[in-house]
Amino acid sequence: MIQRQTGPVSTSANVLSVDAMGGDKGPATVVAGLSKFLAATPDAHALLHGPKAELDPLVAAHHLAGRVTVHDASDVVKMSDKPSHVLRHGKKTSMWSAIDAVRDGQAAVCVSCGNTGGLMALSMLRLRKAEGVNRPAIACLWPSRNPAGFNVMLDAGADIRADQDDLLTYALMGASYARNGLDIARPRVGLLNVGTEEHKGRAELKVAHELIARAAEKGEFDYIGFVEGGDLPSNKVDVIVTDGFTGNVALKTGEGTASLVGELLRGAMMGNPLSMLGALLARGSLRRLRKRIDPRRVNGGVFLGLNQTVIKSHGSADATGVAAALHLAYRLAQTGFSDKLAARVASAATLAQDQGQDNAAETGSNKTGD
Amino acid sequence: MIQRQTGPVSTSANVLSVDAMGGDKGPATVVAGLSKFLAATPDAHALLHGPKAELDPLVAAHHLAGRVTVHDASDVVKMSDKPSHVLRHGKKTSMWSAIDAVRDGQAAVCVSCGNTGGLMALSMLRLRKAEGVNRPAIACLWPSRNPAGFNVMLDAGADIRADQDDLLTYALMGASYARNGLDIARPRVGLLNVGTEEHKGRAELKVAHELIARAAEKGEFDYIGFVEGGDLPSNKVDVIVTDGFTGNVALKTGEGTASLVGELLRGAMMGNPLSMLGALLARGSLRRLRKRIDPRRVNGGVFLGLNQTVIKSHGSADATGVAAALHLAYRLAQTGFSDKLAARVASAATLAQDQGQDNAAETGSNKTGD
Repeated sequence: MIQRQTGPVSTSANVLSVDAMGGDKGPATVVAGLSKFLAATPDAHALLHGPKAELDPLVAAHHLAGRVTVHDASDVVKMSDKPSHVLRHGKKTSMWSAIDAVRDGQAAVCVSCGNTGGLMALSMLRLRKAEGVNRPAIACLWPSRNPAGFNVMLDAGADIRADQDDLLTYALMGASYARNGLDIARPRVGLLNVGTEEHKGRAELKVAHELIARAAEKGEFDYIGFVEGGDLPSNKVDVIVTDGFTGNVALKTGEGTASLVGELLRGAMMGNPLSMLGALLARGSLRRLRKRIDPRRVNGGVFLGLNQTVIKSHGSADATGVAAALHLAYRLAQTGFSDKLAARVASAATLAQDQGQDNAAETGSNKTGD
Repeated sequence: MIQRQTGPVSTSANVLSVDAMGGDKGPATVVAGLSKFLAATPDAHALLHGPKAELDPLVAAHHLAGRVTVHDASDVVKMSDKPSHVLRHGKKTSMWSAIDAVRDGQAAVCVSCGNTGGLMALSMLRLRKAEGVNRPAIACLWPSRNPAGFNVMLDAGADIRADQDDLLTYALMGASYARNGLDIARPRVGLLNVGTEEHKGRAELKVAHELIARAAEKGEFDYIGFVEGGDLPSNKVDVIVTDGFTGNVALKTGEGTASLVGELLRGAMMGNPLSMLGALLARGSLRRLRKRIDPRRVNGGVFLGLNQTVIKSHGSADATGVAAALHLAYRLAQTGFSDKLAARVASAATLAQDQGQDNAAETGSNKTGD
């Protein structure tokens, strides 16, 4: 079985494991993003996985020799590879190598632009699910009206199913992520449904509603009950819990809508000379707005529920997007997030057993303030 | 059993049945919207349902005496009423009266701002499901890059479940609605999933994928396969088929995202004097943009799969929104949509039986060009 690297974390907490391959734009973009990140983060170091012959010149061109160690891996997981194929034939891929560096305690967090299904399958195989987790989840950040600027939504598509116990685990993991990734001391957790009335929704949602409400106190979050799709960007909730099918559709719908509105806005402003002049005058403000809702800023789906943390960067991410994912990874590495999360979910089973009991003697590992 | 009013359609096709009550803004707003609609549509007539003492002065104030007939109904379905309550105690409500006017052939289409669950339950009780339909659906319009400006998505929330046969029925109904409501001769139909690869998604989606593909030729639509959330506003698809849980979340997520972006845009433009001047210069273009994505323009969820057509107007619709729903209702009334749809879905059962057979003698009711 997996030995969780609680010892080496202090030495590897500054080291990220980066899969250079698998992104739509190739390793040059990943290395450019890595260069940006390293320039802004003097203490960080990276292990870069991929064909050495291809990566060495890129590392040299960015003058990263002292900050980046290349791990040679000849094969690449393609976007079209099925997860089962990756598991069977992926041993020599850069993705496998990047995950194993985290497994072996050489790095704190793994980042890859590779195909999501393959990355999740390999991560589960090599890092194993954390104790108490049945279905790992992908957490994404959602631009919102919150002071933090973002909400957390999970599962964004790791698994197309989630039962009531999975949804409870997602609530605990999402709250822990919001604390460590977004600095929200006591996250507000909501359960996504088609209405906020208690009688609405699928059967497993009604049960999960009860389970999460009862876990809130010990889980150190506030449960605000059912939320709707319109609440995703709201400031009434920090963590939105849903199954991976619904979450994935919602995420892509939100992205698609924002992109349509942006496109229509550009079209409208370029429609006549007067509004073109207006756009010119307002260009500073429009640029700030674009930055605020730029999907590259929220790049990085975090795999939760494994013994270590893996971050999926968008396949089409450019250097800015890759750098954003690396910054997020570094932040989570620095806070020792993997260990904190594992402690949280390990206590979930205990939580479930304790529910309804008033066990005053409870001083479990969920009191670590993570 | 219900007698479908094929005879009186020609006389009632100009008549809409309007529930004056149940909207958040009260009957004054509904009558104001009705007045707008009637001013633009000289041949139309309306039956208006609600407390006569309240409605008569409103009708008089808008000088609609010759165009509107008030049907007295003392009770109102409240937003908080559960569907079961409405079914048991709703007999004297304006909603019941509005639906029955369509059932009795006095009007072609019913429009209500009242609570969705109650309206669907009453519609199913009084109008009955059309032959071949297991689960009726709500179809909504989605602002898109299409030439028509809109895509159709269903189910937007009539039922939180849908099996493979329901999804096939939704495809047929959605295609018929796109033909009649949006004038798209040969709609492109897509099935919402978490990826476009054939091996992805829930089991019922894979079966529905096969069923819809095989029904496309006789259903006179093009099946483009799986689509993702990001495709909802795209120009690659006209009709998006999904279950009511996913559809409802997607709809509200899209609305919430558009509203967040709009809010951030206003904030950005008002942020400094230069951009305020810019906004002033561009205000014509920005106004057109706002109109283009105005949710009021797409107001009107159409209940599909009943023997007659009911349109749910948004509870918070203002007069413009109510008028939009009435225009949509009138358009569907004029095209004889209810009968055409019933013929379509009645042939669905035949379609399913015929699938895989090359029955050259087939000259069923699905050849009516609707």
